[in-house]
Amino acid sequence: MPFSQASISQIELIRYFNSIQPITQGFINQIIDNTFTVNVKKNKFLLSPLEPNSYLFFVNSGLVRGFIKEDGKDISTWFSFGKEIIGAFRDPANTVKPSIEYLQALEDCELLAIPYDLIDKLYLEFPETNVIGRKILAMQYHQASESSILARIPSAQKRYERFMEISPLGVTQIPLKCIASYLGMRMETLSRIRNKMVKPKKDAA
Amino acid sequence: MPFSQASISQIELIRYFNSIQPITQGFINQIIDNTFTVNVKKNKFLLSPLEPNSYLFFVNSGLVRGFIKEDGKDISTWFSFGKEIIGAFRDPANTVKPSIEYLQALEDCELLAIPYDLIDKLYLEFPETNVIGRKILAMQYHQASESSILARIPSAQKRYERFMEISPLGVTQIPLKCIASYLGMRMETLSRIRNKMVKPKKDAA
Repeated sequence: MPFSQASISQIELIRYFNSIQPITQGFINQIIDNTFTVNVKKNKFLLSPLEPNSYLFFVNSGLVRGFIKEDGKDISTWFSFGKEIIGAFRDPANTVKPSIEYLQALEDCELLAIPYDLIDKLYLEFPETNVIGRKILAMQYHQASESSILARIPSAQKRYERFMEISPLGVTQIPLKCIASYLGMRMETLSRIRNKMVKPKKDAA
Repeated sequence: MPFSQASISQIELIRYFNSIQPITQGFINQIIDNTFTVNVKKNKFLLSPLEPNSYLFFVNSGLVRGFIKEDGKDISTWFSFGKEIIGAFRDPANTVKPSIEYLQALEDCELLAIPYDLIDKLYLEFPETNVIGRKILAMQYHQASESSILARIPSAQKRYERFMEISPLGVTQIPLKCIASYLGMRMETLSRIRNKMVKPKKDAA
């Protein structure tokens, strides 16, 4: 009964890692002993630039966003719809520096906190972690590149269309003001684009 | 004499990998047998969406940019100043799909073409490759996140300032029209910001 002392979110993380690359019992034990569940209520913060950036999080359920503050404005930088690992912006060459990103729950969330210290230890002691790490980083790199390209599309409508195309169904739960800042447009522009896009369906009805 | 048959750019790539994680002779031999040097003249393309996206490139010397075409406009997505690995946008879950990105030399470049097939083989046969891969991907993920956040800063001047802050000295070689599209602003806006920023120095002289 290897999972007897594991929490639900730990079991989900172990399943997630194991689906990427088979993991060993020693690895599983490290996860069980060194990660912990965090329940965060809707709109509450997981992390702010005032705190040390010491954890990654596995989003077991809920909806999380990253955002920065710029001239008093709140700018969304990414959204996570769950069953993946998230973290605040972090320079691998300067890991002590606090992140400029805030992490906020947009719905009630169950997360598993994974200390960076544990990850460093897993990389050293369990070689399979390097395979898991590079496959997860390849996905995260792809998502960040997608998000970087998206933000540079000149037409606001095309940015919105592309965002809807690449986002999962849970996207409808994101507050519009968060989507607007992510897409670099005003709320009024976003509303106008959305109204224009649903109109043909109404006319046809 | 392990490097006796290696080209200059192969030796530079081997040095680069070895500085990240010690590599073995078998790994080195695979690099020597399966990568090849490509010299690309200024303004020429390394890759376009019409070609299969089958290679990563080690930039031994020169300056390269990625860009996309959107409504007939050319939008820069990143710049590389050398001694790093670059590649066109690629979904790790769909590696057959051609990339939407073009790769273009902005100066005469010497590159080493590294087939994705070789990388897959190295991951399987030489476990140290996974350590190298995840460390390079962590850097690339960080750069892409930085670029994604940068594009969402509302003030054009702050985007320019941040870009100059995080870019190496070689940034002065990038044509202004490429910087303008990367920063999501018109050429006139970029010129106005640059003129405004150098003015105090002139007044002081």
